[in-house]
Amino acid sequence: MNSKKSFAVGIDLGATTIKAGVVEKNGSIPDQFSVDSKANKGPKMVIQQIIFTIQELFGRHKPSECAGIGIGTPGLVSIDSGTVQHPPNFVDWGTVDITKEVRKAFKMPVFVENDANCAAIAEARYGAGIEFKDFLFVIWGTGVGGGIIIDRKIFRGPHGGAGEIGHISIDYNGRLCNCGNYGCIESYVGQRYLSQRTKEILTSAKDGLHTKLEQLVDGNLNKLNPEIISQAAEEGDQTAIGVLEEAGELLGCALASILNVLDLRVVVIGGGISAAPAFVYESIITSLRSRILKPHKEGVRVIRAKLGNKAGIVGAASLVL
Amino acid sequence: MNSKKSFAVGIDLGATTIKAGVVEKNGSIPDQFSVDSKANKGPKMVIQQIIFTIQELFGRHKPSECAGIGIGTPGLVSIDSGTVQHPPNFVDWGTVDITKEVRKAFKMPVFVENDANCAAIAEARYGAGIEFKDFLFVIWGTGVGGGIIIDRKIFRGPHGGAGEIGHISIDYNGRLCNCGNYGCIESYVGQRYLSQRTKEILTSAKDGLHTKLEQLVDGNLNKLNPEIISQAAEEGDQTAIGVLEEAGELLGCALASILNVLDLRVVVIGGGISAAPAFVYESIITSLRSRILKPHKEGVRVIRAKLGNKAGIVGAASLVL
Repeated sequence: MNSKKSFAVGIDLGATTIKAGVVEKNGSIPDQFSVDSKANKGPKMVIQQIIFTIQELFGRHKPSECAGIGIGTPGLVSIDSGTVQHPPNFVDWGTVDITKEVRKAFKMPVFVENDANCAAIAEARYGAGIEFKDFLFVIWGTGVGGGIIIDRKIFRGPHGGAGEIGHISIDYNGRLCNCGNYGCIESYVGQRYLSQRTKEILTSAKDGLHTKLEQLVDGNLNKLNPEIISQAAEEGDQTAIGVLEEAGELLGCALASILNVLDLRVVVIGGGISAAPAFVYESIITSLRSRILKPHKEGVRVIRAKLGNKAGIVGAASLVL
Repeated sequence: MNSKKSFAVGIDLGATTIKAGVVEKNGSIPDQFSVDSKANKGPKMVIQQIIFTIQELFGRHKPSECAGIGIGTPGLVSIDSGTVQHPPNFVDWGTVDITKEVRKAFKMPVFVENDANCAAIAEARYGAGIEFKDFLFVIWGTGVGGGIIIDRKIFRGPHGGAGEIGHISIDYNGRLCNCGNYGCIESYVGQRYLSQRTKEILTSAKDGLHTKLEQLVDGNLNKLNPEIISQAAEEGDQTAIGVLEEAGELLGCALASILNVLDLRVVVIGGGISAAPAFVYESIITSLRSRILKPHKEGVRVIRAKLGNKAGIVGAASLVL
């Protein structure tokens, strides 16, 4: 970053919300702002919303001190062309040149990158990955995604799509995934599956278990979500513990395959479900250690991400900084 | 390579045989030579054998015209230190600095690299990969290994061990692999498994099938190997066709996971079993296409390697050339 410039703008574009922040060189976010992304109204509207959030921040912080704008987005991002393809849950979106549109509105450098990659970059620079030159970043939430950090830089792959670890199949005859493949790890440990699996176990228990879990959702099992499952587990609920342990074990299995291929040893886990209790991490690492190739076992670590949901904004701004 | 030098020496170190060749800049091998690697006698003896083969070649070709020596070896190779760790089937071998020993004997540049990576480099420069900037190279033989070519260069990973694709698990509850993990693709499609599976099917057929396959091995099912199975398949033997089709389908499943993570589209298959009939490639590609992520489907290709068992020598020499 030009040393005269004191900040960059980071945009975390989601299907529901656009989060934008003023990010300083040390990774701190002195000012942050969110709007509805209006993803159901098509790309023009989404771009208007992005421009609006930036204008809002520039009303409070001098644009002349801004080094540039970084945008993290779902979908397949072409770094060369600055385009974004098929972000899930964005309506009427084929291939859109976000970079060009935002550059037109603000005469400054604009960069765009996949959101999982942004979060990986943020953890590498400012978060749990600082001490590791190479690691796999995992987003464990609604879906399972990832970013590959090699030599402190993101490994994008030839077309910018590397790191799609949610679609490693752990069972070729397994569950049908949304992507059309069978047995993808996402279809076992993603948010929806965890809730559904817990519900199934509770429902199938003949006498009703009257568990902690059921109390936490007032008997309405449709309210189950990973936070509640985690909370119940921490309070000793055996069903919740079982579901999360199993998820950790399966995630460890997928991670072993990935680390074997990429020659990595360290995994940093972010995303909503990464807030799970420590025993889940134990479960992941035990499974991973027992399955990874012998020469890779040494130094295997699985750690929790540090930046939480700020990773998106910070990582996007890092594209500039 | 120094333009005055006309060739490099490529060494393909195997647990049974050391193959050495004089390799010219265009990838041709005007002279080639093999000796027993004596891997059961420890690293000192193996290094003696390597040095002996090089001396033999230098008796026939001027060392002053040799740009250097490249060595492809099994095991984990550290490019920085030039050491080789734990090559399977080499006795008493912890970590050995092959590079230093060979450099001591011949005053010229010496490079060492993993054998699968060497073969991948050879196919990238002189073989089936010439037209592709990025591809996954697969060695399909006794085991399943690989090399990752990104932007025409080998992707080694942080510790030089990237590309261990044989230990992607396709079933976390599946077959126990030699490596200790369950469901590794190697334990489904490696040479031994293919032969064993074929034998099982033939043995379990109550009345005796009197198949082409049984004729080819004179009724001795222990003689089954992938070449014979391939031959029987080409002659219409249904058991052989079934086994190979299934292997292709499973390999396609593992490849889908790997290509998703690495963002690759092209697979080049070498190794002994790559000589299998064309329908096996059809089976791989059908499975891969049906399982890979949608944005990756376009441009997916699976092709046969071109250099056969010369790839090791040529790739090793390429480290110098």
